[in-house]
Order: sequence, then structure tokens, then C-alpha cells
Amino acid sequence: MTDIKKQFGEQIRQLRKDKRMSQEELAFKSSLHRTYISDVERGYRNISLKNIEKIAKALGKDPKDLLEKNHV
Amino acid sequence: MTDIKKQFGEQIRQLRKDKRMSQEELAFKSSLHRTYISDVERGYRNISLKNIEKIAKALGKDPKDLLEKNHV
Repeated sequence: MTDIKKQFGEQIRQLRKDKRMSQEELAFKSSLHRTYISDVERGYRNISLKNIEKIAKALGKDPKDLLEKNHV
Repeated sequence: MTDIKKQFGEQIRQLRKDKRMSQEELAFKSSLHRTYISDVERGYRNISLKNIEKIAKALGKDPKDLLEKNHV
């Protein structure tokens, strides 16, 4: 099984790239630090619900859409 | 808009009740403390991705299913 943090990070990176958004832009829009976004995308962060919500809003998505189906 | 922590908590409570599971049982199955489960259900906790995963497994659900659609 894939680690949920890693899978979440890959999903964020994909959605961000789909929007042609840089990490800097996503960081700015979500009021999070660029290095934090970078860490999340690499699966290094055990992100909390509130920050999932911030990133979802910045990407124009529902928080639910940030979690891949059948990640286990 | 409803607070994401509160909405997440209500969703967990509903899924747990659907399974006729007590907070104690859910706590045991997810290796989390009963008071933590209680706090999560009341929307007091900014739960992390790893703990979302633990609760999802204990409920036999995908982590995605723990987040309600259109919470905003």
C-alpha cells in the first residue's frame, strides 16, 4: 500500500500542475509557506484537516477531491 | 459555511453509528484514545491525514468517504 501522505502529495502536485500554478502561487493563495507546500507534495507532511481545506480552496476543489479513491 | 472539523466529526459519528459501533470500539480499532474520538466527533480536533486514515480503516471506509462533498 502507498503511504497516504505520499499519495496526497502526488494528488496535490497533479491538481496544481493541471491549473498551471507554481508552488509559490499555491502557497500564496492558501496562505501557507512555499516550503510547506513543497514538503506536502513530497509526502513529508502529515497535513491537518484545516490545511487540507486551505489547499483545496486555493485549487478550487472540494477537500474530498484531494484524497484519491482506493489509496490502500 | 460549516467548519470542516465540525462537519468531519458529524460524518464520523454517522458512519460509526451506521456500524452500531461505540466510541470505545472505534477507539480500540483505530488505536486512538476514546476521548480523542469523542473530541473529533464534536469537531474539536484538527485531525491529521494519518489519523483520518486510521479511523477510515477502523470504519471499513476509504479516507475520501470521511469527507463530505460540498462542505463549503
